[in-house]
Amino acid sequence: VDGVSPTLTSALLPFAPVLHVAWADGRLTPAEFEAIACAPELERLDADTRSAVTSWLLPGSPPSAASLAQLHEAVRNAAGPQGDAASLAELGLVLARQQGAQGDRLDRLQQALRAMETALGVAGAEAARSFVPLSDGAQLVAPAPSLNATALNGVVDPDHVELRGRVMRMLERPEFASPVEIDRAEYRAWVLERCRALSADGVGALAYPAEFGGRSDVAASIAVFETLAHNDLSLLVKYGVQFGLFAGSIFQLGTRSHHVRFLARALTLELPGCFAMTETAHGSNVRDVETTATYDRATDEFIVHTPHQRARKDYIGNAALHGRMATVFAQLIVGGQRQGVHALLVPLRDDSGSTLRGVQIEDCGAKEGLNGIDNGRIAFDRVRVPRDHLLDRFGSVGDDGVYTSPIASATRRFFTMLGTLVSGRVSIGSASVRAARVGLSIAVRYAHTRRQFGPEGSPEVPILDYLTMQRRLLPRVATAYALGFAARDLIRRFSDHAGPPPQEIEVEAAGFKAYASDFAVHTLLVCRQACGGQGYLAVNRLPRLLADADVFTTFEGDNTVLAQLVAKGLLTQYREQFGELRLWGAVRWVTDRAASALAERNPIATRRTDEDHLLDPEYHASALDWREARLLDSLARRLRHRIEAGEDSFAALNACQDHAIHTARAHTERLVLGQFHAAIAGVADEKLAQPLRTLCALFALHAVERDAAFFLAKGYLEGVKAEAIRTMVNRLCGELRPDARPLVDAFGIPDAVLAAPIALR
Amino acid sequence: VDGVSPTLTSALLPFAPVLHVAWADGRLTPAEFEAIACAPELERLDADTRSAVTSWLLPGSPPSAASLAQLHEAVRNAAGPQGDAASLAELGLVLARQQGAQGDRLDRLQQALRAMETALGVAGAEAARSFVPLSDGAQLVAPAPSLNATALNGVVDPDHVELRGRVMRMLERPEFASPVEIDRAEYRAWVLERCRALSADGVGALAYPAEFGGRSDVAASIAVFETLAHNDLSLLVKYGVQFGLFAGSIFQLGTRSHHVRFLARALTLELPGCFAMTETAHGSNVRDVETTATYDRATDEFIVHTPHQRARKDYIGNAALHGRMATVFAQLIVGGQRQGVHALLVPLRDDSGSTLRGVQIEDCGAKEGLNGIDNGRIAFDRVRVPRDHLLDRFGSVGDDGVYTSPIASATRRFFTMLGTLVSGRVSIGSASVRAARVGLSIAVRYAHTRRQFGPEGSPEVPILDYLTMQRRLLPRVATAYALGFAARDLIRRFSDHAGPPPQEIEVEAAGFKAYASDFAVHTLLVCRQACGGQGYLAVNRLPRLLADADVFTTFEGDNTVLAQLVAKGLLTQYREQFGELRLWGAVRWVTDRAASALAERNPIATRRTDEDHLLDPEYHASALDWREARLLDSLARRLRHRIEAGEDSFAALNACQDHAIHTARAHTERLVLGQFHAAIAGVADEKLAQPLRTLCALFALHAVERDAAFFLAKGYLEGVKAEAIRTMVNRLCGELRPDARPLVDAFGIPDAVLAAPIALR
Repeated sequence: VDGVSPTLTSALLPFAPVLHVAWADGRLTPAEFEAIACAPELERLDADTRSAVTSWLLPGSPPSAASLAQLHEAVRNAAGPQGDAASLAELGLVLARQQGAQGDRLDRLQQALRAMETALGVAGAEAARSFVPLSDGAQLVAPAPSLNATALNGVVDPDHVELRGRVMRMLERPEFASPVEIDRAEYRAWVLERCRALSADGVGALAYPAEFGGRSDVAASIAVFETLAHNDLSLLVKYGVQFGLFAGSIFQLGTRSHHVRFLARALTLELPGCFAMTETAHGSNVRDVETTATYDRATDEFIVHTPHQRARKDYIGNAALHGRMATVFAQLIVGGQRQGVHALLVPLRDDSGSTLRGVQIEDCGAKEGLNGIDNGRIAFDRVRVPRDHLLDRFGSVGDDGVYTSPIASATRRFFTMLGTLVSGRVSIGSASVRAARVGLSIAVRYAHTRRQFGPEGSPEVPILDYLTMQRRLLPRVATAYALGFAARDLIRRFSDHAGPPPQEIEVEAAGFKAYASDFAVHTLLVCRQACGGQGYLAVNRLPRLLADADVFTTFEGDNTVLAQLVAKGLLTQYREQFGELRLWGAVRWVTDRAASALAERNPIATRRTDEDHLLDPEYHASALDWREARLLDSLARRLRHRIEAGEDSFAALNACQDHAIHTARAHTERLVLGQFHAAIAGVADEKLAQPLRTLCALFALHAVERDAAFFLAKGYLEGVKAEAIRTMVNRLCGELRPDARPLVDAFGIPDAVLAAPIALR
Repeated sequence: VDGVSPTLTSALLPFAPVLHVAWADGRLTPAEFEAIACAPELERLDADTRSAVTSWLLPGSPPSAASLAQLHEAVRNAAGPQGDAASLAELGLVLARQQGAQGDRLDRLQQALRAMETALGVAGAEAARSFVPLSDGAQLVAPAPSLNATALNGVVDPDHVELRGRVMRMLERPEFASPVEIDRAEYRAWVLERCRALSADGVGALAYPAEFGGRSDVAASIAVFETLAHNDLSLLVKYGVQFGLFAGSIFQLGTRSHHVRFLARALTLELPGCFAMTETAHGSNVRDVETTATYDRATDEFIVHTPHQRARKDYIGNAALHGRMATVFAQLIVGGQRQGVHALLVPLRDDSGSTLRGVQIEDCGAKEGLNGIDNGRIAFDRVRVPRDHLLDRFGSVGDDGVYTSPIASATRRFFTMLGTLVSGRVSIGSASVRAARVGLSIAVRYAHTRRQFGPEGSPEVPILDYLTMQRRLLPRVATAYALGFAARDLIRRFSDHAGPPPQEIEVEAAGFKAYASDFAVHTLLVCRQACGGQGYLAVNRLPRLLADADVFTTFEGDNTVLAQLVAKGLLTQYREQFGELRLWGAVRWVTDRAASALAERNPIATRRTDEDHLLDPEYHASALDWREARLLDSLARRLRHRIEAGEDSFAALNACQDHAIHTARAHTERLVLGQFHAAIAGVADEKLAQPLRTLCALFALHAVERDAAFFLAKGYLEGVKAEAIRTMVNRLCGELRPDARPLVDAFGIPDAVLAAPIALR
């Protein structure tokens, strides 16, 4: 049923804008009818005008589609650029004047139109805007960024500048471009070949002594790893398996003879190797791996054996195809006595690549990501290796066939050997930050150019102008800065330390790896979704980055397990601080902490919502300090109550596991904020320090906001302050928005490495 | 440096347990030294014993590794199964009795050992447990589930039982098993072939009238779609593009002649087709698509044209390879006048599959997921189609060349045409729930059998016994139930409604799709990570489900855009409820709501933490009601203030966008909870109703917990209650844990469809 065709005369034209708006949603409500038809000012106009207007006001008989379209077109054509009038009434008057209306008639029209727009509730410029002629080419001018990305990059990565640049130049070469769609077998070959190119350049050996081609510079080696993390993550992991885990285990767990015989060959990739710790049934709980290495005094050999299928070494990188040798973690048995987990070098394949007798290897097959890595499962059937294949720095078997170790406690010995994993955790944590930065660079650049929707009558706006998009991306940009500074500091302290890292760094590395890899995965997911369908295309890299980085939350220690490790480390420190003898089964707990940081909380601060306070770095630091202290204190108390009530420590810790993980996260976040503050303190150029302070405030306030439930429940925040923080997060996002592009450009990822077409427009 | 080898005599043996524990961490602290060496009770023992004990207590000279290992082994061998003693002292006494100690000596030993364990803070059975001999085969007996999964499945899917079963039997056939690793071209062919098999079975036509092979049963057709969502998601989407979007657009937007000529051929897949709405530059804002369809009176044809590259139809499923025709959305121009977006049927390829003249198609290439779908980009170069190819239900061009429409308002007409998307949103929302259930079934089954770590001296425990794992999975199982009931109700109301759905259902479908697809993606990510490395293997399905379902948050309406649509719908209802004439530019706002649901909040409830209250469904409902009302009310007020201060509505809404999205989510969650309550009310069997009530309470309290910051900030919760809710969530997880397996089995996914090896052990 088409509608009626009411009068569209020149007398009607001044009323066309109000009439069109009244009908725009297809309905004429009684209130709308009344607002126009019953305006007393209408009565004062001539009969022609009155009847023309009322011909449009039959609630049961809407005007036809064609009539409404003509009405709109007529106004737009007549008004021209003046469609952007102060209101519908003003627009009507423009049209009336064009028709020569003046004097009394103009006055009466004005009164009638103003009455109508007021009664309709559409006074104001916005309602008139739909009549502005379309201007296809019109573009909003984006505010010019004020930030120098190159200068800021000098703050982000001040170290190993030449080395990072050299590796980045390699990655820019077309042959290093991460393949978009590639068969698994081809991809593995691609990765191995690039790994050889890196090795040929010598960057794989940097962490090791000069006699093996390096310069004993662990930090430099991590700088290379970080640079690789902007590109193909399979290549990154292959590189890490060979030069980090395999070569690292020889260097850290072995002694001089192993270094001489195997290390140089590993570092030139002449000897591709594996790090065979995980078993099918034991991934996190590697202390209970079931592979055995039994010393046979008769032949002076170790017999390496897989007792059953679930004890196979599983998910071992380099195993399915390329590995010639593996560092195998096994229960060492000497003279019938179990000595705990030790590592041995076990040859897997001969020079032609055939697996050796007693070694059975199965390909793990297709994975979510990292399909350039040839993961495999290895079973050993009584494989014999000479006694000197035991990596014997922390436990050895003498010529007399007797086991000795410089570390008496089996527990301590085990954790010392696991210290080789700390380097991996630091590296994967830092690589996670880099992968997240790639995602953020792509998403921010896209959101900066992609336009969708906009105010009525105006060009579409860049989607980064939307608050939600800013909230999704900009706090993550801030976090990517924060984690970069934290990584730099952790790497410095880790690499300055000779020998096995102290427990403090081990705990910090565990927390950092868990926090950063979790951040990376969620950031890449957000970036993918923020880029809509474009983000879903393989060519735009986000899908593969997400799929590859997802396993960073699992390998080198499952994030949940690592978070518990952090919590346990904090509880140990807490115990020592308060003179407890033992945490578990304790009877000598201090009954109360008389004075603690918790009591010093200033009650006024729970309510302060002024800008000076909300942006004060000391407030940010004290909030995150307080949270950690409070969580740790209450965690310790809860555990004590449970243990005193007769629960065993396993059950007690399990009952508080969510609390423990929250504590670990709070701890890491507090450390990260501290490093952000320290980094800013070192920036002399105010033009760079200022945006960094804004980013830092955003990171801190966003952290408080995400955990607002905790702060509110414990009385550290009041509702009005939580609301003020939310508002301030929005404001900081808005302040950073004009500089969003240089902020991600300062991550220093060249276009050729970024590669995603949506990022390069 | 190896340590010393202190005395290990039979006199020492009773002290071996305490000595081993003191040295277990490799250090002897002064306090530990004092606890043993300075025990006055030690002085009362003989000199041999005293010197044997003190030989182990040289803080600077730890015992050697071999000595400590022998000490441990000696105790374990001697103690036998009694190693599981009440304490270290008891264990020592067992050893002493074995050596024949009795009378006075036994008493003195007992006093000394008790004093030592107390001073060390290790009194209790746990410390003794490391001496229990290993029993490899020991397994904890899992508590038996009490729930009948089959019976519960009858509550989960009570409708279309025969049909769902029939489709599920097809999916169980080996040829329907989702391929693990497949080349893109092969995969596309695989999907098309299975689509044909489904079509041959007639299930694709169910929604359409009998004359086209169906039975006009929309709900049945969605039941098929839901069943397909447990299997290969590319097949699901291909099916949806052909039988939902393409056939649906012909049926909903076309008239009789289109149905007769094209619908039956679409439903048999004789005519594979596309739904060509999205353009490169216009994904969300489809009102501004730039493809034109200009009526040429001379030839009585439409000229379909792509004005520039960014106006190409993009991401169109079925376009790259299989599509022969497309429903193309274009700006209709008749007699020089723009009539807004309309849909036309445009042939793309001839019978041999070659693209027709003027049609240019580019393959979108590899994607994150759904690689069985041949998405493509289509450009039209002045392609002519006859006038009767315009789908003319809501707008047509007559024999006189004049445009007419039964819907006068261009805005209303556009949204009526978009109503065809509502069906897609309902279907994708519900399919999301099914995909999430597949993930949850795999992860829960795995977590039920996978063991890792455990109490000292006991077998490892299933990882589902860990609180964190329960918290990751079980509230999501509860949500998967909740969303299933909500979907059932929404589908019933949607399919009962003839013609374009009313705005209420449109808004509800938008909210449901956004909530459910977001839930699915995050659930699949959590499931993947919960399954560790196993979850990362393609064969275990989680990676592909995640990659495929990720785009559910983008297509059929970006979730952020949909949430805003929901918020706008709620604001419109709010306006009408309070007698506002117009939301934007309003002058007649009610100045205050004198009495509202908000004021009725009972202040006592903010503090009640008793179980009856926390588990009361009325409390849950009122909490979610209150949240929504409060958010909506404050959103409306904030917008009014901004508009009154002169902001335009676009800027005002953007400034409150986070608030609007929060409101939309709260609205959907409230509706979902209501449907959960309604579903439980319909369950007569108490053995099924009881676990459903527990699940429902978990869903509701988890929702409150996640938004605790809001409830706390607004004074609806106090801190102590927020803490009680957290504790109750933990408790409910624990209560549901024994039934976790039947709870996921009740989703009714057969093993052959679940397919993941880790789920089938």
